[in-house]
Amino acid sequence: MAPNAKEVSASGSLDGEHAFANITYEMQKGDSGVWTFTTPVLPSEFYRYHFTVDGVRTVDPANAHAIRDVGNISNVFLIGGGKADLYKVNDVPHGTVAYRWYNSPGNGMMRRLSVYTPPGYENSTAKFPVLYLFHGVGGDEEAWLGSGRASEIMDNLIAQGKAEPMIVVMTNGNVSQEAAPGEGIQGFVKPTFMLPHTMDGKFEETFIDVMKFIESNYRTPATKESRAIAGLSMGGFHTANISLYYPNTFDYVGLFSSALGVRPMNNNPSPVYQNQDEKLKQQMENGYKLYWMGMGVDDMPMIYNGNKNFREKMDSIGMKYEYVESKGGHTWNNWRDYLSIFAQRLFK
Amino acid sequence: MAPNAKEVSASGSLDGEHAFANITYEMQKGDSGVWTFTTPVLPSEFYRYHFTVDGVRTVDPANAHAIRDVGNISNVFLIGGGKADLYKVNDVPHGTVAYRWYNSPGNGMMRRLSVYTPPGYENSTAKFPVLYLFHGVGGDEEAWLGSGRASEIMDNLIAQGKAEPMIVVMTNGNVSQEAAPGEGIQGFVKPTFMLPHTMDGKFEETFIDVMKFIESNYRTPATKESRAIAGLSMGGFHTANISLYYPNTFDYVGLFSSALGVRPMNNNPSPVYQNQDEKLKQQMENGYKLYWMGMGVDDMPMIYNGNKNFREKMDSIGMKYEYVESKGGHTWNNWRDYLSIFAQRLFK
Repeated sequence: MAPNAKEVSASGSLDGEHAFANITYEMQKGDSGVWTFTTPVLPSEFYRYHFTVDGVRTVDPANAHAIRDVGNISNVFLIGGGKADLYKVNDVPHGTVAYRWYNSPGNGMMRRLSVYTPPGYENSTAKFPVLYLFHGVGGDEEAWLGSGRASEIMDNLIAQGKAEPMIVVMTNGNVSQEAAPGEGIQGFVKPTFMLPHTMDGKFEETFIDVMKFIESNYRTPATKESRAIAGLSMGGFHTANISLYYPNTFDYVGLFSSALGVRPMNNNPSPVYQNQDEKLKQQMENGYKLYWMGMGVDDMPMIYNGNKNFREKMDSIGMKYEYVESKGGHTWNNWRDYLSIFAQRLFK
Repeated sequence: MAPNAKEVSASGSLDGEHAFANITYEMQKGDSGVWTFTTPVLPSEFYRYHFTVDGVRTVDPANAHAIRDVGNISNVFLIGGGKADLYKVNDVPHGTVAYRWYNSPGNGMMRRLSVYTPPGYENSTAKFPVLYLFHGVGGDEEAWLGSGRASEIMDNLIAQGKAEPMIVVMTNGNVSQEAAPGEGIQGFVKPTFMLPHTMDGKFEETFIDVMKFIESNYRTPATKESRAIAGLSMGGFHTANISLYYPNTFDYVGLFSSALGVRPMNNNPSPVYQNQDEKLKQQMENGYKLYWMGMGVDDMPMIYNGNKNFREKMDSIGMKYEYVESKGGHTWNNWRDYLSIFAQRLFK
């Protein structure tokens, strides 16, 4: 309803064809002052959109449901009846989501992380395996819960018997900040993409602080076979590096549209990036149960080719992995999919 | 930045005088297409605002920090150097915030609540007292954490030695829904003010389910002297009624702008509302440590007078209470203040 506006558009992936793109659709003004745009029947998915009113990006005043992704707030809706049923809150047992603060001596600060514990965790004495799950550049410890629907995906897969009950730890991979924007002592800062210490090795070096906290605060076997690690984009880069830098620690490794190739690892002075060829060979020799990679066919060439080069390196030494190439590019649609696939393969 | 817009305004309490009102301020268009409005120096407070662009309510595209309150999304900012320092994330030990699901047989469903546990809870064997903290009509289990800054207030008061470490349980007082809009099986429903079972006694009748869950899942003495109950508006109404309906259960009762007088309790068939005069006398005879009431002088007459009548009833039987009247009306500014005051009085 914008009787005084001259131009209104909707942006998102609302035409049923480009399920992974952000496209702007002009809206038409009706006599009553209501602007409309009619989508075709849309496939089942978790959708994000926003309006632009006379040149100003805005949320839909008729939809109270919105998510912040880096610095933008977008509205969301969900169409079920297909894959997005995994992303819904269904009438199944729900796990707990907790925001906790842990001591990171390596960063000289207390830091915030999110922990999903599976249904029944609190009323049990059993030990549960752990999936460490990392966000991309510009994200934070809330990204996998908001855009990624991680707690809904885990609840639903566990209820269907498709995933083992597990703890999921969602860290903040930007070690120059202790918490998501607005949740730390820096206050309501403007979220940005490239913070100090982004992809310089510091997150990987200090990841031991996260593991120590989790393994002393949660009931988990703390063995290689009970640890999985995965991440999207920058988080996939973190995942690859952590699985190299902490040898023989993870039986399951998942790279989702991993930002391999974005930084020349060998030019970085961090010990994380030294002798990676030798470390990779050692990782292969130590063995693991699953090294899984997902990639959108339309991802950025730097990322697509960086992963291709990495797979060729693995091929050259005979290192096993599974590779899934999906439609679309560097999007949450793919990452929700990859988590849904990867989680079903863990701890079995 | 809205070069194509014809009219832009900012709404909030941005003139330094009306710290509790929602006022609309016209903005002026500059040559560059940037619209401006300059506030005077504003007092320390947690502020909420939104823009209106050519008649359409919108968020500030330059501010990624926003909170949903019932059906509206507003931007927020905080000015420190005064009372709002209590509402900031400071460099102090932080408690944990967890979203948990509990079984409510009285409502035939699993329901979601928020729990704040104080710093050190997880690495201790001590028992902690519990404050049950209720939202107003249209709110949910996220309201006290978002608009109410409850976890920041508790962290800061505990760090300053002004409040005892305590567990704070924030329920969803709308028993027709299992969780906040978007967090339950109803999906991304439109938040509304009056849902089925709003203030009909059902929340109070089934509150035993909440207490049972908390007292079997958290380390707490489960005694009268370790239980406090408080709420704002509808939550203050719930608080008054629960403290009557569960006799001799709470040593601390807090009514924040309580919606007394909104519904004629005696015409409601729920057992919660029967014989309230007798129950009140019994509550007085059983004794308690603190019955605290806060009220804004500009609150709605129905609520202001409803509380006046209730205090007169307490006076008439010689029942003790403390009453604080503050500036402004039915606003989160007052409720954050009331929580800050009330929490310091508990469990000492």
